[in-house]
Amino acid sequence: MIPVFNVLTEEQVQEIHDRTIHILETIGVEFKYEPALEVFCNHGQRIEGERVFFTREFIESMIESAPSQFTLLARNPENNLVCGGENTIFMPGYGAAFIQEANGSRRSSNMNDYDNFVKLAGASKNQHMTGGNVIEPSDVNEHIRHLRMMYSHITNSDKCFMGSALGYLKANESIEMASIVFGKEAMSKDPAVICLINSITPLIFDERMAGAIMAYAEQRQAMIVAALVMSGSTGPVSLAGAITVQNAEVLAGISLAQAINPGTPVVYGSSSALADMTSGALSIGCPECSLFTTASAQLARFYCLPSRGGGGLTDAKVADAQAGLESMMNLWGAGVSRINFVLHAAGILESYNAMSYEKFIIDDEICGMLLRYLQGIDFSEEMFAYDVIKEVGPGGHFLYEDHTVENFRKEQRFPDVSNRDVYGMWAVSKPDIVQVAHDRWQSILDSYEPPALDEAINEKLLQFIEDHSK
Amino acid sequence: MIPVFNVLTEEQVQEIHDRTIHILETIGVEFKYEPALEVFCNHGQRIEGERVFFTREFIESMIESAPSQFTLLARNPENNLVCGGENTIFMPGYGAAFIQEANGSRRSSNMNDYDNFVKLAGASKNQHMTGGNVIEPSDVNEHIRHLRMMYSHITNSDKCFMGSALGYLKANESIEMASIVFGKEAMSKDPAVICLINSITPLIFDERMAGAIMAYAEQRQAMIVAALVMSGSTGPVSLAGAITVQNAEVLAGISLAQAINPGTPVVYGSSSALADMTSGALSIGCPECSLFTTASAQLARFYCLPSRGGGGLTDAKVADAQAGLESMMNLWGAGVSRINFVLHAAGILESYNAMSYEKFIIDDEICGMLLRYLQGIDFSEEMFAYDVIKEVGPGGHFLYEDHTVENFRKEQRFPDVSNRDVYGMWAVSKPDIVQVAHDRWQSILDSYEPPALDEAINEKLLQFIEDHSK
Repeated sequence: MIPVFNVLTEEQVQEIHDRTIHILETIGVEFKYEPALEVFCNHGQRIEGERVFFTREFIESMIESAPSQFTLLARNPENNLVCGGENTIFMPGYGAAFIQEANGSRRSSNMNDYDNFVKLAGASKNQHMTGGNVIEPSDVNEHIRHLRMMYSHITNSDKCFMGSALGYLKANESIEMASIVFGKEAMSKDPAVICLINSITPLIFDERMAGAIMAYAEQRQAMIVAALVMSGSTGPVSLAGAITVQNAEVLAGISLAQAINPGTPVVYGSSSALADMTSGALSIGCPECSLFTTASAQLARFYCLPSRGGGGLTDAKVADAQAGLESMMNLWGAGVSRINFVLHAAGILESYNAMSYEKFIIDDEICGMLLRYLQGIDFSEEMFAYDVIKEVGPGGHFLYEDHTVENFRKEQRFPDVSNRDVYGMWAVSKPDIVQVAHDRWQSILDSYEPPALDEAINEKLLQFIEDHSK
Repeated sequence: MIPVFNVLTEEQVQEIHDRTIHILETIGVEFKYEPALEVFCNHGQRIEGERVFFTREFIESMIESAPSQFTLLARNPENNLVCGGENTIFMPGYGAAFIQEANGSRRSSNMNDYDNFVKLAGASKNQHMTGGNVIEPSDVNEHIRHLRMMYSHITNSDKCFMGSALGYLKANESIEMASIVFGKEAMSKDPAVICLINSITPLIFDERMAGAIMAYAEQRQAMIVAALVMSGSTGPVSLAGAITVQNAEVLAGISLAQAINPGTPVVYGSSSALADMTSGALSIGCPECSLFTTASAQLARFYCLPSRGGGGLTDAKVADAQAGLESMMNLWGAGVSRINFVLHAAGILESYNAMSYEKFIIDDEICGMLLRYLQGIDFSEEMFAYDVIKEVGPGGHFLYEDHTVENFRKEQRFPDVSNRDVYGMWAVSKPDIVQVAHDRWQSILDSYEPPALDEAINEKLLQFIEDHSK
């Protein structure tokens, strides 16, 4: 593994922390959920209306009680994930309401798309989780949507996945459904679900999100506490100001989880980005966004917490050069700064609004490239290849050497959809990468076999959904 | 400026150096140019035929005599460049024989294309030099091609540029032509031309390249000494082995320049890449290539030398998602590892074989994004924006705050061709980024005015070319 990239100096990290504490002490954060206010009150924090003013001691001791890493359970124990340290975990896009088709049209996403993306993530060697809320299935009734999503993850793959964060009740239902598969006892030791908590910037947690924090914390399941500060609209236009607002929100959310149940696995999350000042629109494909991500990885390390950020983030509407370059920038920054959880690693398009099957395949290639890069250079004796260099000598050729034949698969990564043909070969059919990606996801789905699931468990899951459909 | 990214540990850098010295001592490097062999002989290096065996003392003392940074003169002193330290210098692609048109067809490049790319680089706020050999102008007779190129750079822009490295004679003619503009005296203090020396991997310098090293060194003009090891064909398939071969070649070339004229400005260059083992074809769009680049930046720092590497490198044939993602990866790696000279920063396509006007514009956007990223986050008191955060408070909005209006241009970079419109706006015309880039370069050329040049100098330049056309 290559060394970690730090975009900030140690002094800058300390300054962000100190200024964040000052915000928490003097401006505070609103929690629009009475049970959360009670928790803070019981921990001696000053409350005015819905606004909580935190002390440095409280925040710092709460952060300290959170684990620096944890294991997330998968249905197949081989797919369990260690979350934290220098591990990179990729998973698909999250929450898009639309599908951008290869032919250029856009439509609402549905449950069939949901299952498809879970299967594609399940089949990918680069995606470590199948994610959560991979699209918004508009054809499923909202009050059981989270259960149908859970069922898709559990049955279509045996990798780790995410649960609902839509309030206390749905969060608990997610956890209960997972316990049908994993058992309550196993889940009391290691979490089997992780959810995504989003603050309402600036400086608010609503009932839904605060409720989900409480549900997950009570049952010691994992959560990402993330802030999406839109620099210029929901936060200061200055990046330094925006990142302190983000930091204040994340620390406040994490402190709630720890106050409820010290040791609850939490992840420091950032999806801060720009409000483009010419239009007010969210921009996630910009270098400023990558600055937020890489700085956040470092803040998480400062707090000894796993991190979440980055992804194949782009403002492009289709899988074109802009989509490629913006997604690479945001994934690369996340990778080298050693973000642990990379949501949106594949498929997301149009500033989070759409998913694209073709972009999923192209982003998955980026993920594979990044994993190869992170692996770094193997500096073992054999790889220095002195004897071969000596034998071949000036002007010679290495192509047919035993050393080459024996090692090329270890050293070189081969692309899935990127084209490396010489021009003459390529010009025969002039393959279009979007079409190549289109053919590829269709063939992956055609041949995908979900891993077997115990029929008794399957019936319990279906019964659970049935019971909650009324 | 953000901190420098190091992809290697200090121990790994030292090990590469020690193993490189072992190669130089025991395997040696061939110089197919008698005057170069004489120089090494006079410096006490053992020679067998054309092969030079170096001592550690000689190599290390030669490297030590090279400057860690130097100033490259531009016709407009405001465009002078400090080469070295943490400076990033972007310039267009180099050496392509083809133009890839927006309509998908490919044709030979010509002198009109040459002038166009020099003008586009001259007009760009992100390209710091107009480069050199920006395409191969097939319609100009080979024996004056280098002079016609020089004339293009001198007359179409007042930024820094490169000279010929095609043997002792042409190298000297380049330098002589530059001296018409800059004067021999100024050029004896600071270089006004820089050339690109490429070794013949593995472990050879031919007459052309060794001759150019001698010409530039004698006149104390600058040179990049670069190696393109094709890992698997012209070098070991193992990256560690390939990088020691690269390092041996670069150090050998630099030592020749220093032996001739200690203190000659030299740049440590890497363009090492893969020979794809499924086809033998050169692959420059791969993560292994970015490992070579980022590691080379660090080797150059170890030797206290400026570095050259990276660029908008891609194996894609057209400006599609693959071109975008590969170019971003290779530019980003070069940027954060703080490569000083980034040749091929804009326009290059198809593993160095083609230039594309549209890709030039798209890559130039990447360069702008990267420059914004490298600038990092402004942590001044005002940018922490505490007063504004307090005033706006939880649930408020920053869009119309004075702080936002006053600072957004400092904090946010606005794209040139990337699309940030909301979907509805975009869907009105569904602009294609390649077409947008096409329109853009045409409009830049339409309105471009080359900076004025003294008519007497212009006549001398034309006379010089005339004199050498016979």
